[in-house]
Amino acid sequence: MSHNTFGHLFRVTTWGESHGPAIGCVVDGCPPGIPLTESDIQHWLDRRKPGQSRFVTQRREPDEVKILSGVFSDDRTVQQVTTGAPISLIIENVDQRSKDYDVTRDLYRPGHADYTYDAKYGLRDYRGGGRSSARETAARVAAGAIARRVLGEEIKIRSALVQIGKIAIDRAKWNWDEVENNPFWSPDADAAKQWEALLDETRKDGNSVGAIIEVQATGVPAGWGTPVYAKLDAEIAGALMGINAAKGVEIGAGFEAASLSGVENADEMRAGNDGKPIFLSNRAGGVLGGISTGQPIVARVAIKPTSSILTPRQTIDRGGRNAEISTKGRHDPCVGIRGAPVVEAMLACVLADAKLRHRGQIGN
Amino acid sequence: MSHNTFGHLFRVTTWGESHGPAIGCVVDGCPPGIPLTESDIQHWLDRRKPGQSRFVTQRREPDEVKILSGVFSDDRTVQQVTTGAPISLIIENVDQRSKDYDVTRDLYRPGHADYTYDAKYGLRDYRGGGRSSARETAARVAAGAIARRVLGEEIKIRSALVQIGKIAIDRAKWNWDEVENNPFWSPDADAAKQWEALLDETRKDGNSVGAIIEVQATGVPAGWGTPVYAKLDAEIAGALMGINAAKGVEIGAGFEAASLSGVENADEMRAGNDGKPIFLSNRAGGVLGGISTGQPIVARVAIKPTSSILTPRQTIDRGGRNAEISTKGRHDPCVGIRGAPVVEAMLACVLADAKLRHRGQIGN
Amino acid sequence: MSHNTFGHLFRVTTWGESHGPAIGCVVDGCPPGIPLTESDIQHWLDRRKPGQSRFVTQRREPDEVKILSGVFSDDRTVQQVTTGAPISLIIENVDQRSKDYDVTRDLYRPGHADYTYDAKYGLRDYRGGGRSSARETAARVAAGAIARRVLGEEIKIRSALVQIGKIAIDRAKWNWDEVENNPFWSPDADAAKQWEALLDETRKDGNSVGAIIEVQATGVPAGWGTPVYAKLDAEIAGALMGINAAKGVEIGAGFEAASLSGVENADEMRAGNDGKPIFLSNRAGGVLGGISTGQPIVARVAIKPTSSILTPRQTIDRGGRNAEISTKGRHDPCVGIRGAPVVEAMLACVLADAKLRHRGQIGN
Amino acid sequence: MSHNTFGHLFRVTTWGESHGPAIGCVVDGCPPGIPLTESDIQHWLDRRKPGQSRFVTQRREPDEVKILSGVFSDDRTVQQVTTGAPISLIIENVDQRSKDYDVTRDLYRPGHADYTYDAKYGLRDYRGGGRSSARETAARVAAGAIARRVLGEEIKIRSALVQIGKIAIDRAKWNWDEVENNPFWSPDADAAKQWEALLDETRKDGNSVGAIIEVQATGVPAGWGTPVYAKLDAEIAGALMGINAAKGVEIGAGFEAASLSGVENADEMRAGNDGKPIFLSNRAGGVLGGISTGQPIVARVAIKPTSSILTPRQTIDRGGRNAEISTKGRHDPCVGIRGAPVVEAMLACVLADAKLRHRGQIGN
Repeated sequence: MSHNTFGHLFRVTTWGESHGPAIGCVVDGCPPGIPLTESDIQHWLDRRKPGQSRFVTQRREPDEVKILSGVFSDDRTVQQVTTGAPISLIIENVDQRSKDYDVTRDLYRPGHADYTYDAKYGLRDYRGGGRSSARETAARVAAGAIARRVLGEEIKIRSALVQIGKIAIDRAKWNWDEVENNPFWSPDADAAKQWEALLDETRKDGNSVGAIIEVQATGVPAGWGTPVYAKLDAEIAGALMGINAAKGVEIGAGFEAASLSGVENADEMRAGNDGKPIFLSNRAGGVLGGISTGQPIVARVAIKPTSSILTPRQTIDRGGRNAEISTKGRHDPCVGIRGAPVVEAMLACVLADAKLRHRGQIGN
Repeated sequence: MSHNTFGHLFRVTTWGESHGPAIGCVVDGCPPGIPLTESDIQHWLDRRKPGQSRFVTQRREPDEVKILSGVFSDDRTVQQVTTGAPISLIIENVDQRSKDYDVTRDLYRPGHADYTYDAKYGLRDYRGGGRSSARETAARVAAGAIARRVLGEEIKIRSALVQIGKIAIDRAKWNWDEVENNPFWSPDADAAKQWEALLDETRKDGNSVGAIIEVQATGVPAGWGTPVYAKLDAEIAGALMGINAAKGVEIGAGFEAASLSGVENADEMRAGNDGKPIFLSNRAGGVLGGISTGQPIVARVAIKPTSSILTPRQTIDRGGRNAEISTKGRHDPCVGIRGAPVVEAMLACVLADAKLRHRGQIGN
Repeated sequence: MSHNTFGHLFRVTTWGESHGPAIGCVVDGCPPGIPLTESDIQHWLDRRKPGQSRFVTQRREPDEVKILSGVFSDDRTVQQVTTGAPISLIIENVDQRSKDYDVTRDLYRPGHADYTYDAKYGLRDYRGGGRSSARETAARVAAGAIARRVLGEEIKIRSALVQIGKIAIDRAKWNWDEVENNPFWSPDADAAKQWEALLDETRKDGNSVGAIIEVQATGVPAGWGTPVYAKLDAEIAGALMGINAAKGVEIGAGFEAASLSGVENADEMRAGNDGKPIFLSNRAGGVLGGISTGQPIVARVAIKPTSSILTPRQTIDRGGRNAEISTKGRHDPCVGIRGAPVVEAMLACVLADAKLRHRGQIGN
Repeated sequence: MSHNTFGHLFRVTTWGESHGPAIGCVVDGCPPGIPLTESDIQHWLDRRKPGQSRFVTQRREPDEVKILSGVFSDDRTVQQVTTGAPISLIIENVDQRSKDYDVTRDLYRPGHADYTYDAKYGLRDYRGGGRSSARETAARVAAGAIARRVLGEEIKIRSALVQIGKIAIDRAKWNWDEVENNPFWSPDADAAKQWEALLDETRKDGNSVGAIIEVQATGVPAGWGTPVYAKLDAEIAGALMGINAAKGVEIGAGFEAASLSGVENADEMRAGNDGKPIFLSNRAGGVLGGISTGQPIVARVAIKPTSSILTPRQTIDRGGRNAEISTKGRHDPCVGIRGAPVVEAMLACVLADAKLRHRGQIGN
């Protein structure tokens, strides 16, 4: 089972390879009557688009999305709205250079899925990583744009890079506005400068670096999610670890929680004027017992360094013989940078599904 | 949707509360003809059983499992084997002291699901945490015992605690045999001694500590899992984060991967005599592109400190009024200790499902 | 995959064999706060119970249900209510006579699953049909009792037998009250008398007969279900055909619709006082385009004659040798008779799931 | 939940409306290495294509399918094969005449989903039925073409119309070759002639007629399917009832089984030379206890008469006012005629899924 579908009531199925004619997705279960145009989706795709700075891949993809189904407009609806039918989105692949990948035809790139694909399927589309290409994430971002519409304007999802390589931001300098001012989604202007130097050096060295992305959703009401297995944080963890190159996921205090005492870790509560609790901290990251608390949901994802690097590495070929590989092509020196919109999109999809399932069982 | 089911072909549905008459699970999709008796399952339950040292809850639960369906024996099968029908397991609750929990009836314990349950459902079974009790994990361990049978003897799943509170093990001293010699599942005898002192002090202080559990599966062939969304590591992450008190999950190098360069991170390969690769390192944790590599699968889970502590904490009551709470009852000072068998069980279930799904699509 | 689970938001998982210690089910996704006691469920089980007339199996099963989880009561809830957690139900098997089935150990009963179980699983629990026993349907009836509670009192589900063997009722004589007055669920008192004679003769002949059950749900609002694949009628068809011995399912005019012209078949509409349509007929059976119309939902199921008969039949044994078989044991001469409560229960479960999914997507 | 996905391991998700730019589907879980080109799929689409005789809609749709993902070829694969990744198929809509449907904008066509869509979604794409158009079935046929490849050449799926209006075929005259010789998929040449006259008259009268389609799969090995809920026949019933305009489904003897005695109905067995049974009849329709017997799988579907007819019918408008409607446009006088390839495709998809799931659990 390839299982290219995720979600239960709000369901996303994606398809497409890096070097096929197009990629796309089908978003099923969307409530009807929600205003939705191509430009609503394009807005988010443009944030992920390659080629926007010298720190990301130079592949030129306009990433123009087309809506093929599930929307309707006439003089009664005034604007174009969702109908409740599946929404099919397509993004054509434009700037493919399959030649770049001839070397991967017979050699397995360390850190890549080349060997495992062959081990599983007995064959693989080696051009640009095929199905495992980061290009697939454009479909996730497109689906996430619809998920945001389902969540409504009161729920705000945004992300920032909090570490590239060994250089972490200073959380005391966190400024959300800064995230839009640098090509690294850094909330700390000083860290952005350091990252710039780091990445220029990394690229010059034919190397790559990893990153940590933090994502936050505010405005999520208390009560979404379920107690076990389908815990809201478990679904977030599965969704974020399902992103290419992700190696770790944590919620709230995350791994740090292991070092805390119970006295430190549990978020104390005070009575708010509306009868709801005011939490004095958010080590829980907005989820207790698998259910949202009403506090911001906070998660972090570790993204490994890009595996495609110029520096030659030892490997084997399809025939099981020793070889060496140096990956050319137009690769991101830090694939985590363009990961931020993808992380946001996945969180949006999980929350949209949680919203619909919650009201399915509970009725509001 | 409470979604108390996980898995696709190998499916587990659990039920039961801490203070109801029993807990249990239904394991569906198990291949037929696999030898299975109650003592096969009991073996694993006994490893999780409370009351085995002074460092865990003193609740006395024999945790005796009964098989109610899905097995059969006669003179032809010789031993009792699975039939392919759903296997229903039940474990009676014996040592319930609901009185201990009267205080939680009206007060929300910080760090617990008390508030979120009320926010979601409008009511809750407050006795011992009800559905969110760690007691539910016995059902997971029972299901995991069956999953191990499905995986066969060549696949070995074991775990160890690698950190309690701020004290991590010394990985150079890792000795799997040591894990059975101390009450902390520590692979490092020296760390176990330090943890003993730490936990005695923690309990005396009416406090608790967190932990990190590492789990490893050896013998998994290359090729299990799928490239996106249902990546093997994504399913592991979802399953492990679905365990009570889990706050973070990582695979292989995990969060450390963010600090590594591409040259350091990608596991180089050399040709093995059998034509399969010999990987020179395992930063990937046995999974590349969502598919197993044939190397050991390695994951870690961060478990937060037990939220039920004697030290009084600020909270609110059901009526939205300020209050203070100090949780009595028989709690684990470090809930992570008894988490190790649960983590193993969840990994076993994910792998059993991956095995069946793999052969469904691929045919071997 | 044995797939013993059905439903999406309202999910039922059943387990158990005819001659194991018990059978049962887990009902997951039930909304919280719904009053539910064992006697609520027992009421429906009693209607299906064996041994209530000479026309059904003489096996004596009290079929007493116990609720093991998912409910709660204290002085605040006043009565016992659902909590939103999975509801585990168990029914002990009492009157097992495995000896009766020794003959089926090596011989395949024609019309039974004996051969196909062996072909699939390589072994089978031959006592009383094991998992394929009609006994399993008690778990469905129990789940259906909860589904009725989810649907509320405005939705009424009831059924009647409209044909046994070649004798159909006269629809002009339909009287719902009559259904409770005879042991055949017949809405036509005259047909009941004819069936009595037919069944006495059938039993005397060591033979059996089939039946057609009609089920009706009134009070279902317009709008439940979805347009394709998961059409409300498709889910009803799948659920009813999933009942043991079912060989056909139809909605509204059903197979008769093939003989009708478009002019005859389409249900014309007139404006009701409330702006909603008054349909002038109900050939659609309450479903158009997969979505409920607000009219009564009407379906029929064909149940084949009991395959276990005294009359000797030709068969083969496990070794592939010719043989003859005559099935003793305590069998229903017309298994369709006790099928009526099962058909109702399955429809209730499908509708409860449709209700929750509808409000998940649409919000009311 | 719109649930436009069906299947478990072999999963099909369809999308698209009658009057949008295109329709299509995503087929996920297909085994790798299966030869597949667009012309393989086109072959089956052409059989369903409109405009091939005067007895079907005159809409002119070339129905040219494009494969957008999931296949690959190079000099090693020689031919184009599946990769195991999701296969995205697209069919452009060409001959749309939305004007034809202005009347349905405000009026509800009796027998159509117009009213129920508005009741559910609060709006609808009224052009050509939108999502509920029979045009959607082209995507099913395309998916079914892939399913046939998964099943392999030993499994043969074919169908025939056995009744149109009140005129049934004479089963004694059944000739599979004849099915290709007339525009009605009739296996009985004489019936085809009578149907021709019937349909000419029906069209002249501005009326329509229903039909019954019989579908058969030969070569299915014993053992596919599961005992309860996901019984092979239950999945077939759900899939076939999920086809537009289907009102009834039966397996083997079907509704006729209700009239049979147990002696007549149970298919007796004799030992075959290969140790497998030779069944002396096939009243079971190839399925016993939810599991295939190895005999041909035989099912029938009742298709109601086309609801869009010229004859004026009473209805209401969106505002709840009485009105009259006469549907123009290019409609099939008997929508069942073009239903045969759709029925085959749905059966193929169910069987492909059953095959993969069977080998997932059982291993062969």
